Amino acid sequence: MNFTLEQIAHLIGGKLDGSKDTKVNTISSIEDAEKGSISFLSNPKYEPLIYTTRASAVIINEKLVLNKKINAALIRTANPYAAFTSLLEVYDQLLSFNKNGIEEPSFIHKTSTYGSDIYVGAFAYIGSNVKLGNQVKIYPNAYIGDDVTIGDRTIIHPGVKIYAKSVIGSHCTLQAGAVIGSDGFGYAPLDDGSYKKIPQLGNVILENHVDVGANTVIDCATFNATLIKKGVKLDNLIQVGHNTLIGENTVIAAQSGIAGSVKIAENCKIGGQVGIAGHLKIAAKTQIQAQSGVSKNTKSGQIIYGTPAIDFNNYLRSYTIYKKLPAVMKQIEKIEEKLLNLQRKTQ
Amino acid sequence: MNFTLEQIAHLIGGKLDGSKDTKVNTISSIEDAEKGSISFLSNPKYEPLIYTTRASAVIINEKLVLNKKINAALIRTANPYAAFTSLLEVYDQLLSFNKNGIEEPSFIHKTSTYGSDIYVGAFAYIGSNVKLGNQVKIYPNAYIGDDVTIGDRTIIHPGVKIYAKSVIGSHCTLQAGAVIGSDGFGYAPLDDGSYKKIPQLGNVILENHVDVGANTVIDCATFNATLIKKGVKLDNLIQVGHNTLIGENTVIAAQSGIAGSVKIAENCKIGGQVGIAGHLKIAAKTQIQAQSGVSKNTKSGQIIYGTPAIDFNNYLRSYTIYKKLPAVMKQIEKIEEKLLNLQRKTQ
Amino acid sequence: MNFTLEQIAHLIGGKLDGSKDTKVNTISSIEDAEKGSISFLSNPKYEPLIYTTRASAVIINEKLVLNKKINAALIRTANPYAAFTSLLEVYDQLLSFNKNGIEEPSFIHKTSTYGSDIYVGAFAYIGSNVKLGNQVKIYPNAYIGDDVTIGDRTIIHPGVKIYAKSVIGSHCTLQAGAVIGSDGFGYAPLDDGSYKKIPQLGNVILENHVDVGANTVIDCATFNATLIKKGVKLDNLIQVGHNTLIGENTVIAAQSGIAGSVKIAENCKIGGQVGIAGHLKIAAKTQIQAQSGVSKNTKSGQIIYGTPAIDFNNYLRSYTIYKKLPAVMKQIEKIEEKLLNLQRKTQ
Repeated sequence: MNFTLEQIAHLIGGKLDGSKDTKVNTISSIEDAEKGSISFLSNPKYEPLIYTTRASAVIINEKLVLNKKINAALIRTANPYAAFTSLLEVYDQLLSFNKNGIEEPSFIHKTSTYGSDIYVGAFAYIGSNVKLGNQVKIYPNAYIGDDVTIGDRTIIHPGVKIYAKSVIGSHCTLQAGAVIGSDGFGYAPLDDGSYKKIPQLGNVILENHVDVGANTVIDCATFNATLIKKGVKLDNLIQVGHNTLIGENTVIAAQSGIAGSVKIAENCKIGGQVGIAGHLKIAAKTQIQAQSGVSKNTKSGQIIYGTPAIDFNNYLRSYTIYKKLPAVMKQIEKIEEKLLNLQRKTQ
Repeated sequence: MNFTLEQIAHLIGGKLDGSKDTKVNTISSIEDAEKGSISFLSNPKYEPLIYTTRASAVIINEKLVLNKKINAALIRTANPYAAFTSLLEVYDQLLSFNKNGIEEPSFIHKTSTYGSDIYVGAFAYIGSNVKLGNQVKIYPNAYIGDDVTIGDRTIIHPGVKIYAKSVIGSHCTLQAGAVIGSDGFGYAPLDDGSYKKIPQLGNVILENHVDVGANTVIDCATFNATLIKKGVKLDNLIQVGHNTLIGENTVIAAQSGIAGSVKIAENCKIGGQVGIAGHLKIAAKTQIQAQSGVSKNTKSGQIIYGTPAIDFNNYLRSYTIYKKLPAVMKQIEKIEEKLLNLQRKTQ
Repeated sequence: MNFTLEQIAHLIGGKLDGSKDTKVNTISSIEDAEKGSISFLSNPKYEPLIYTTRASAVIINEKLVLNKKINAALIRTANPYAAFTSLLEVYDQLLSFNKNGIEEPSFIHKTSTYGSDIYVGAFAYIGSNVKLGNQVKIYPNAYIGDDVTIGDRTIIHPGVKIYAKSVIGSHCTLQAGAVIGSDGFGYAPLDDGSYKKIPQLGNVILENHVDVGANTVIDCATFNATLIKKGVKLDNLIQVGHNTLIGENTVIAAQSGIAGSVKIAENCKIGGQVGIAGHLKIAAKTQIQAQSGVSKNTKSGQIIYGTPAIDFNNYLRSYTIYKKLPAVMKQIEKIEEKLLNLQRKTQ
């Protein structure tokens, strides 16, 4: 992907100081930039970097006065950081949506429908009665089961598996290997010690603007839906159990596991490798520190830590003492000794 | 999938009170049911729900006398819950086994054989000398390596990867993205600090009625087999190391990790995010609480918790005190103070 | 794969005592060997096993004098263990590299190039401008994005997903379902509580001799590269965050999670289910015990344990006391009682 500096200056509304035909093909931080990349300088304290950078072009503040010779071309603008961010977004949109058309061989059942500007990669499988919106991108080796619907501008990365009847909103991104709608882990114990599978007949609903990380798994509900609400962001290798609900704009870091029938409210922040036991209610804005094991309901805005999880500061204060428990034991022994001496004295 | 109420009443041996031609296409809980679904009412205390449900039909006790007008059709039977469960099972069987035939393009090596009523989805790969039983269902994008055998009525969901030489029993279900037979993590350290891979030549054997969750991984043995015995149920994102054995009817919740050469006996219950160190022996009916880290052998029926895991009640009693360690420290300081006062007094 | 004992004796430079035309088709430990397998006896204390083994052939020390009749053929050599290991390696090479050619249907973009003796399985996808070295093996249903390069003798197992622009070294092995280059988990919070995705424009670089476990995920960098250096071995279901660096010959066990921008130096040993928080520096030769949660930088050679992780011995000594905290509380109560008695006495 090549752009001339003239195109970029025009895009961000900046003034070019350099050759308009110079081309750049990538975007980098100013320290690590190589020839062919464009970067930015926003914080004045990093000014020295502009004299040594290998970037072909740098976006800088329109008022910055340089006091040494530089190699890079410059694009001057009122707010270099905002300009750079908007450049990032344009670049990302171009990258994310540059795939188009239907590659062969792919499998699209004749009963399925799709909007404009879609991409279906080779070896992607689209079952019967599937409905794909506009600009949906389905990468190679992805599987879309029967009766699934996927909203506009959603990106399904390679090897994603979406079980039948799932509903995926618009503007969602599902990273490679994610699994949506696998059977919930529900078994009835029998008298002989074996287990009988309880059929899982529900589905999974992802609302709009939901992101799902690589190899993350969301189980379908027993009945009805496992529901992931608008704006939820899930990192990689997360487990979401059946019948669970995750509220708007809650973010969960990698490898956390949410058991079945949990209700997580909106705007929670859940660290990595957290476990949440079944049927709990996690209140809005709860923060759960990494590796915690949550075994009871939380209050709104609570910060918790530990296994089982308790108040964050309580955990840390206790841990401070935990670390010196051997010394505490010596302290207790010393007390006992002194006490014995006193007892002897007073007899 | 449409059924008339006449068909359902016949199936469960119930008496229909409503139009025999009414059709239902799904099964729901009575609270969440919509038009077109059938539900059940078993516990008399939920009777009020029957007057408000939107279900098209409800299975009820043959003796129940209703005291208000209802919209739903009724199917009366001696045991509504048992009838509903058997309905669920029939529905699930129909759903699970309704795929048939071989979709194109798929890859089935000419040396491989298969039984009757199988399904092979598009982009499924079946290597050489594979043997598939009757009614085996292999969903799209699944990979079955050379010399694998799969027993009757086993379901392989999309994107499952089964390495060469694995043996999969009958009536097993492998959820999407599961990996069976990847190389065990075995390396010999060399003098220069690097590692040399130890070839992993064994395989994985799943006996009958084993379920494997989405994106769960079971490594092959160095020699011989990693063995998952009859009736074992594994949830999602679990790791099973090489040469490990898991005994009959043991169930393991999501994201637990079993290291190499572990022997787990039958009927154990292992919570989520548990870790079990290499070469341990876990006795029959051991219960391991979620997030525990097991570092020594267990006794039959033991319940353990913590990292490293100890007796469950011991852990909880200690944790109760852990939470108030700062107060305990103040208590100790107070004792020291009083002791000092006494010492002064008695001098 | 069949070999005559004559071929094997020749390969390991041993002297055959048995029929040169006897064939073996697998390699086993001496206890578990069946007919058709070859094994070895190195440690003299296991000599009794040679009289009962069902192996068709056993590699033994050239000086060993047997005092009973045996069924197996023998191959005598100066160092049976070394001979057996070299046999294992030959066998593994044959197994790993016995796939050749391009199966159909597969997808190889016309702009991509490849060396000699490659294997591309059916339903493997190779995007544009990909460069594959010699003897690269790409199993079925794998996805190789645009502009990826893969070095000589690297094996990509089924269903691996490698995002565009990734660089994979030579002699690497990626187990099934591994994901390389998924988007890093980077979001900017907005005023309304929602999150905006920060474009992830970097890539992932795996140097030579890197092994990646099944369903392990390595995110791409925001800019530049997430870098996995030479000789690193990653087990299954591991998470590696964006911009992270893992130093030479570091090994990480299953289900560990490394957050973003972490710098791990060389020769570290990291146990299973460990979590490492973002932006930390882990010094060379650090050992991290399983399930630890690392929240600060480490010193070279340090062994750490716990959540948050502290010195290993410190953690264990404290845990020893943690386990008997209820008894410690009784001890303190007893002290208080005695103290009260003394106080009364001295009034």
